[in-house]
Amino acid sequence: MDYIRDGAEIYRRSFATIRAESDLSGLPEDVAGVVVRMIHACGMTDLPADIRFDATVVDAARGALQRGAPILCDAKMVASGVTRSRLPADNQVICLLDDPATPRLATELGTTRSAAAVELWRDRIEGAVVAVGNAPTTLFHLLGRLDEGWPKPAAIVGLPVGFIGAAESKDELARNPRGAPFITLLGRRGGSAMTVAALNALADPRE
Amino acid sequence: MDYIRDGAEIYRRSFATIRAESDLSGLPEDVAGVVVRMIHACGMTDLPADIRFDATVVDAARGALQRGAPILCDAKMVASGVTRSRLPADNQVICLLDDPATPRLATELGTTRSAAAVELWRDRIEGAVVAVGNAPTTLFHLLGRLDEGWPKPAAIVGLPVGFIGAAESKDELARNPRGAPFITLLGRRGGSAMTVAALNALADPRE
Repeated sequence: MDYIRDGAEIYRRSFATIRAESDLSGLPEDVAGVVVRMIHACGMTDLPADIRFDATVVDAARGALQRGAPILCDAKMVASGVTRSRLPADNQVICLLDDPATPRLATELGTTRSAAAVELWRDRIEGAVVAVGNAPTTLFHLLGRLDEGWPKPAAIVGLPVGFIGAAESKDELARNPRGAPFITLLGRRGGSAMTVAALNALADPRE
Repeated sequence: MDYIRDGAEIYRRSFATIRAESDLSGLPEDVAGVVVRMIHACGMTDLPADIRFDATVVDAARGALQRGAPILCDAKMVASGVTRSRLPADNQVICLLDDPATPRLATELGTTRSAAAVELWRDRIEGAVVAVGNAPTTLFHLLGRLDEGWPKPAAIVGLPVGFIGAAESKDELARNPRGAPFITLLGRRGGSAMTVAALNALADPRE
């Protein structure tokens, strides 16, 4: 079988293909860098049309990480995928879904475990980078708490996936990000792989 | 904000939406169950047209897991995402990408680390469930070793993603699966989230 075995060459050709085939013209250069990595993670060059963002999101997230901010993730797969060597300050990557307090909070609040775990972000969210790559209820719950006056994260990567609430939660984020710089992908698409790609790009501009 | 907070209801409506909107008519019932979970993980109902499979794949993978077979994964995100409580025999979920031997093997073989890690599967592959959710070179390298007479895995979940080699490696798997029951998605799409969804469905038929 004839195939390219040189990892660096695979990366180079992959990113060249993505830049040749996707319409990045509506995106600032730094946001385009993030979207290119998201495309790389899912194989779909049509993402840009559905991307919504605040123009400060890359500076805000990257600056926060350089100052040592933690990354708060909704799913273990997201936390697992972040490339530690790209993090500028050996940042903590935190997922509290399996915290012993989460199931009780979910019952008390009448919501999912994914949303209940947001409660445990309360003391860490100020200036943190938040990454939602799985559960729409996480994003909805977070936005509700921000409405109630929680401190603001440095940035929100809002990419929950699926059929019930995903599109709606991302519409809500894009319409009213509660003053937090954000990036999202409208519609049903999203997920942990794309979220990890966005985080890895925000952490380090190198392709 | 008005949204559904009941996790069980979210699942029920999600799977109902997927079954209403996707054309599963060309798939045996057990394979359709796997594809429904893959759709759930990516938000795209058009996967079925690109799915290729061996009709025995679900029985083969599920039987192997019930007999205690390990799952060999190409990426840590894949290993991280498998829901341990769905595994029928507390099966090992193994990713050897970070094994100390992998970088040296990659240099010796002139290939990627992802492909080199396949070498470390040699003594565990017979009857194992193999899951490739990231690197096309992993799938190519595995197929090459099977051509050379390696023992056969019980099943191959072949879902590498991307622009260089992904479509080609999955075409190769679908054209000639080397006697291994398989499931794949033609084209550039794939990735760790979809692969985890397939594994979780193979491990346990419950939606």
